[in-house]
Amino acid sequence: MTEKLELLEEHRSFDGVQRKYRHYSTVLGCDMTFSLFLPNKEEFETPPLVWWLSGLTCTDDNFTHKAGAQKKAGELGLALLMPDTSPRGDGVADSEDWDLGQGAGFYLNATQEPWVRNFRMYDYIVTELTGIVRDTFGLTGPESIMGHSMGGHGALVIGLRNPGRFRSISAFAPIVNPMEVPWGVKAFDAYLGADRESWSEWDATKLLAEHDGSTQTPILMDQGTGDSFYDGQLQPEKLVDIATEKSYPLTLRMQDGFDHSYYFIASFIDQHLEFHQKYL
Amino acid sequence: MTEKLELLEEHRSFDGVQRKYRHYSTVLGCDMTFSLFLPNKEEFETPPLVWWLSGLTCTDDNFTHKAGAQKKAGELGLALLMPDTSPRGDGVADSEDWDLGQGAGFYLNATQEPWVRNFRMYDYIVTELTGIVRDTFGLTGPESIMGHSMGGHGALVIGLRNPGRFRSISAFAPIVNPMEVPWGVKAFDAYLGADRESWSEWDATKLLAEHDGSTQTPILMDQGTGDSFYDGQLQPEKLVDIATEKSYPLTLRMQDGFDHSYYFIASFIDQHLEFHQKYL
Repeated sequence: MTEKLELLEEHRSFDGVQRKYRHYSTVLGCDMTFSLFLPNKEEFETPPLVWWLSGLTCTDDNFTHKAGAQKKAGELGLALLMPDTSPRGDGVADSEDWDLGQGAGFYLNATQEPWVRNFRMYDYIVTELTGIVRDTFGLTGPESIMGHSMGGHGALVIGLRNPGRFRSISAFAPIVNPMEVPWGVKAFDAYLGADRESWSEWDATKLLAEHDGSTQTPILMDQGTGDSFYDGQLQPEKLVDIATEKSYPLTLRMQDGFDHSYYFIASFIDQHLEFHQKYL
Repeated sequence: MTEKLELLEEHRSFDGVQRKYRHYSTVLGCDMTFSLFLPNKEEFETPPLVWWLSGLTCTDDNFTHKAGAQKKAGELGLALLMPDTSPRGDGVADSEDWDLGQGAGFYLNATQEPWVRNFRMYDYIVTELTGIVRDTFGLTGPESIMGHSMGGHGALVIGLRNPGRFRSISAFAPIVNPMEVPWGVKAFDAYLGADRESWSEWDATKLLAEHDGSTQTPILMDQGTGDSFYDGQLQPEKLVDIATEKSYPLTLRMQDGFDHSYYFIASFIDQHLEFHQKYL
């Protein structure tokens, strides 16, 4: 159990610094790691914060190592915060399947056994980790949120459920309607139980359909046409249809030949950071 | 045994394509993987080729995943070729130590048992893999070579031993004088035997000292001041001293606060590609 923030790694990266921390999460009941990029502190004293939520099987390392976001973030003066994708450890419930349990937290608060004790990634991100980075690093400026696949779902859901908190939302190949696709049905059935009514509050398409229009946080989504999960798991057009119906500011860009990998993310991450920067 | 090139991965990356292949190496007597980035083929029909040689413990994946080189390479129209760092497999000699054996080939031709059968990375790169990429991908244009740490040693040695072949050489935190530092002494003793005379032909500082001056392939080196291997294993000033003595075109840049990681490489890879592009 790690009560305080423990600095695991620190690397100079461009004009900023890339760090990795471990801490004990009281919300999740286990040790967690997260990664944080801070731009040059002399030039950017209180940088705006952009959250990155990763996809299935990932940790905070995947984006940190592979997206190549630090250069542009450093130039624009943005801090980047990369949480892990689930609670972890020997005492934490898990599954034999790669798309359920550890590495697959789906950014929600579970209500079912054996997940209910630890799987509360929504509260961890929205409350606990938020408090830590505000208190410890003084990151009290404006925020935006983005993510990939399961993390795109997380960014959309967390953004839509917290109107006014995030200035902008973006996603790479997000799961936009988890209630209706295999990954989401499997996870929601396990974490939330058989009552489908309770699923709606964790489904971006449902949330946008019920959105009252009082906030208009802009959304940018990129989807590769060569992504093998496009048809069966992602279907971004479902969210676009609702946005069009409600005149909500959502842009979907289809990217020719790109797949579901970090090569896709790296190819467009600069544009996502520039998109967020406009609102931060 | 894989007789033909087998495509393991293919990803669109920026305007180009990132691929990973497996093939049977007759020089090394085992299956090998390598990674290749090709810029947009409609715009760049026969791109110049820049080789990347990785450091201890790495495979062809480390640079491919973490350096963020594809954006600039795609813009400049450069192909990037990332070989593995040693022969591999169950039938290949290995050591319990991370800095000897598989993952630690040191880009030389071993003469000692049990390494002599497979550990011939110099011939593999200079001859066999060269032939493959020329024949299969038509990469018959000009070439440059670069690398990191053990791979910086490899780039310097291969560049200096093949005068006229490479237009430029660059290195991140290279081992410049392996005969005199612990990593190199351990590897050379194992691979080349106790006769130190035979070591000189694999030592960049020795090679440059004996260089006849007929070719003046420019060399760029970056070294982080926060690199924990700087004093004990790297000592780039040794090569600078010889270059100064011989008026050889070598530039060493000390980079404040950077360590030995890929965050360091990512921070300066664009500048290395621009350096090579001037000569390609």
